[in-house]
Amino acid sequence: MAATIKDVARVSGVHVSTVSRTFSAPHLVNPATRSRVLAAADDLGYRPNRAARALTTGRTFNLGLIVADISNPFFPPLIKAAQAQARGRDHHVFVADTDEDPRVEEELIRTLAKQVDGVLLCSPRLSNKLIERLAEDVPFVVVNRRVRGLPSVLMNVAQGARLALDHLAGLGHRRIALVSGPAGSWTSNEMRAVAAATEGLDLVGFGPNQPTESGGLAVASEVAASGATAVLAYNDLVALGVIEGLAEQGIGVPDQISVIGFDDILPGRLNRPKLTTVAMPAAAAGRMAVDLLLQSGGEGATVTLETALIVRESTGRAQT
Amino acid sequence: MAATIKDVARVSGVHVSTVSRTFSAPHLVNPATRSRVLAAADDLGYRPNRAARALTTGRTFNLGLIVADISNPFFPPLIKAAQAQARGRDHHVFVADTDEDPRVEEELIRTLAKQVDGVLLCSPRLSNKLIERLAEDVPFVVVNRRVRGLPSVLMNVAQGARLALDHLAGLGHRRIALVSGPAGSWTSNEMRAVAAATEGLDLVGFGPNQPTESGGLAVASEVAASGATAVLAYNDLVALGVIEGLAEQGIGVPDQISVIGFDDILPGRLNRPKLTTVAMPAAAAGRMAVDLLLQSGGEGATVTLETALIVRESTGRAQT
Repeated sequence: MAATIKDVARVSGVHVSTVSRTFSAPHLVNPATRSRVLAAADDLGYRPNRAARALTTGRTFNLGLIVADISNPFFPPLIKAAQAQARGRDHHVFVADTDEDPRVEEELIRTLAKQVDGVLLCSPRLSNKLIERLAEDVPFVVVNRRVRGLPSVLMNVAQGARLALDHLAGLGHRRIALVSGPAGSWTSNEMRAVAAATEGLDLVGFGPNQPTESGGLAVASEVAASGATAVLAYNDLVALGVIEGLAEQGIGVPDQISVIGFDDILPGRLNRPKLTTVAMPAAAAGRMAVDLLLQSGGEGATVTLETALIVRESTGRAQT
Repeated sequence: MAATIKDVARVSGVHVSTVSRTFSAPHLVNPATRSRVLAAADDLGYRPNRAARALTTGRTFNLGLIVADISNPFFPPLIKAAQAQARGRDHHVFVADTDEDPRVEEELIRTLAKQVDGVLLCSPRLSNKLIERLAEDVPFVVVNRRVRGLPSVLMNVAQGARLALDHLAGLGHRRIALVSGPAGSWTSNEMRAVAAATEGLDLVGFGPNQPTESGGLAVASEVAASGATAVLAYNDLVALGVIEGLAEQGIGVPDQISVIGFDDILPGRLNRPKLTTVAMPAAAAGRMAVDLLLQSGGEGATVTLETALIVRESTGRAQT
């Protein structure tokens, strides 16, 4: 069997893209590494067909990953899992942050389209229509959004919201504040739909809100005034902001109001009270998105990953 | 005065790179946008000299930003500030994470070198020697490291460590645990040097450690057994891990042991007790690094940014 570029990479102890570069752009490879790669290629009888093909077909062995806000601790585990999975398949991942701005998102996608083999689009703020059009230039996998004809990785937010609402109902809560996220967010819509379909609950909606601690902080006094005894928040950052805002008014969590977040991020685990939350499978989503992007048969596939309720200290019995 | 690419971008309401692409790779630009750009160019009498020059000189209007661990909350504010600064100067920023692995770091630098106009290298784990060699392929700015001949953005860790140690000494602490970070870390070395030069303190060193919550957790029982009444930790994550580990052993912070971190990240602000810390100017460093990279005269310049002690709840008087 003929030696492959992977064999050369393994024997010379470098990444496969370095082997590719040794044959396509040798001036960009450090001379010592270049000698080692060429020696290994000679030994193995490797002919750089694949490298040459990669060059002519324009394959880069790079993937782009676009997130709405890199400072939300939800994203780094997803990014790191996607990177590790891609690295295991000889690809690098480059990350760009859109600052929650659809115009920046579009611009970044167009820029990346020329430089990568595919894009993982996480929690996009663009319209589905525009995403469909952009997908003509570069393969996409969309995370946390369902877009017709594109592979999607979804987290079962509806299931998580049901677990959270059942938990609150079991603790005697009836009047529940639903603190949603950005306008048009798929996750917010899923949460609202489940809450509306749950019998016996009296829901008060707050939103749209910034999906950050400040977003939660800004809405806390309205929540307190609403008579709700429990809060289901868009994500953990919002939940932590609500708790902080309630504390500023001397309202204790969970003694007076219970709070549940979504995501399961580090600040929630370190918070006092430790945050009850719906754990989102961010790392699994990152790995799955890379798999869908790199497998050619992935067009249109939708994968839904399960969520889990983690009960900590921020939820308790309703005041009677 | 002849119209520039920026004029065309402003008039047609698109990013300058879209104007560039309209002239260099029109098939990658959405037809409606393309028409708008071409109409604006006609109106203004713009000739795509700069776009053509960018094409021949290989300018990409992209910058790379390499960080040791994107899941450390220290990095996102730096990344976002660098992005905003770059965007204001018509550049995009693509981020890559090295998982604290020098081999991955080298591979990513070599990959990015072909695709960007310059690289911001934050908290590198590579040797200075290798960084100097890699800098022959692509312009670098190094953050949190001093490398001969390369522009560097440093944070005044020594000043921060002095503020922290003075604060502890003022509270009556004499025996202080220094919980350092990864082997070879410039920040750790600075902290150690300052601590060693401070008179009247009895220092106990712990390290090298992973620069994470787990790193702090792993060392907490040794710290407790050392007889130290205060801890100066490599960063906030390590400090939070130490506090968590001490709590598991029933040791209260700050009643029994005081703890100071470095960075000023969100989880420290949300923690109970809220973390006393040395605030690092991460956002300013991100902006400054972009400025140094884009200004051609920046070779070898070193900028040092000041730090500030933020006293919160995790430090108190030494037990007597």
